[in-house]
Amino acid sequence: MPTRTARTAWNGTLETGSGQVELSSSKVGTYDVSFPKRAAEDADGTTSPEELVAAAHSSCFAMQLSALIATAGGTPQSLEVTADVSLGPDPAGGFRLTGIAMTVVGEVEGLDEASFVQAAEDAKAGCPISKALTGVDITLKASLA
Amino acid sequence: MPTRTARTAWNGTLETGSGQVELSSSKVGTYDVSFPKRAAEDADGTTSPEELVAAAHSSCFAMQLSALIATAGGTPQSLEVTADVSLGPDPAGGFRLTGIAMTVVGEVEGLDEASFVQAAEDAKAGCPISKALTGVDITLKASLA
Repeated sequence: MPTRTARTAWNGTLETGSGQVELSSSKVGTYDVSFPKRAAEDADGTTSPEELVAAAHSSCFAMQLSALIATAGGTPQSLEVTADVSLGPDPAGGFRLTGIAMTVVGEVEGLDEASFVQAAEDAKAGCPISKALTGVDITLKASLA
Repeated sequence: MPTRTARTAWNGTLETGSGQVELSSSKVGTYDVSFPKRAAEDADGTTSPEELVAAAHSSCFAMQLSALIATAGGTPQSLEVTADVSLGPDPAGGFRLTGIAMTVVGEVEGLDEASFVQAAEDAKAGCPISKALTGVDITLKASLA
């Protein structure tokens, strides 16, 4: 089974420094990151750990759901998955992820809405990234297109 | 405090379908994903949920460590952080993240190796992505350059 690698090269302090995060296994890209941009309301063209978690989670969830739709007897046609990952103060100190809100709209043959919603809930529980992210609340809205 | 969004558009079944994952808040990129490539030993130019988690975790850890070095009385100059994220079978069913191996090499003024290693252990415990990833074992190797 696979291992995937990413690297961050960081220079300087938290507030005035910056980094470059590289998707090292695939080599599809290297991106700037900075704490002031991470903590700002607007991403301003810069990725962040939260956006990268959203990307990981939405892609994992989509795969898991495509499998569970088939298990339930349906045929997945298209799934549009959005993950919104929020950062906020941690009452225990520092910051924490305060929530992940997942939304999925599916085009599926052979499943009714209730069965699709059940498959989506099962994908939320069973996708490997969800199973790793047990320290954050994950919510889900699922509907057929 | 910020919310960051990513989206995955998926078409087809798990084994024969594919998706595109978009870093929607920053708009820095959109990438293909597929389950056969995710599960293969070699990434073959394609990102995956595991690589994206590695990117999120390495960038978050680097920021947290830069802050904790300053708290400990040092000055962070450069930090090289590598995260290796492994996927494997889950004895409870399906797949799970079987581990995240973090490695950091630092150039730091004003801290000895023991203090740097302690700051790195504290960053591993306290970075928001670590605090969210409580369902997976995280290991750390830290040293000064």
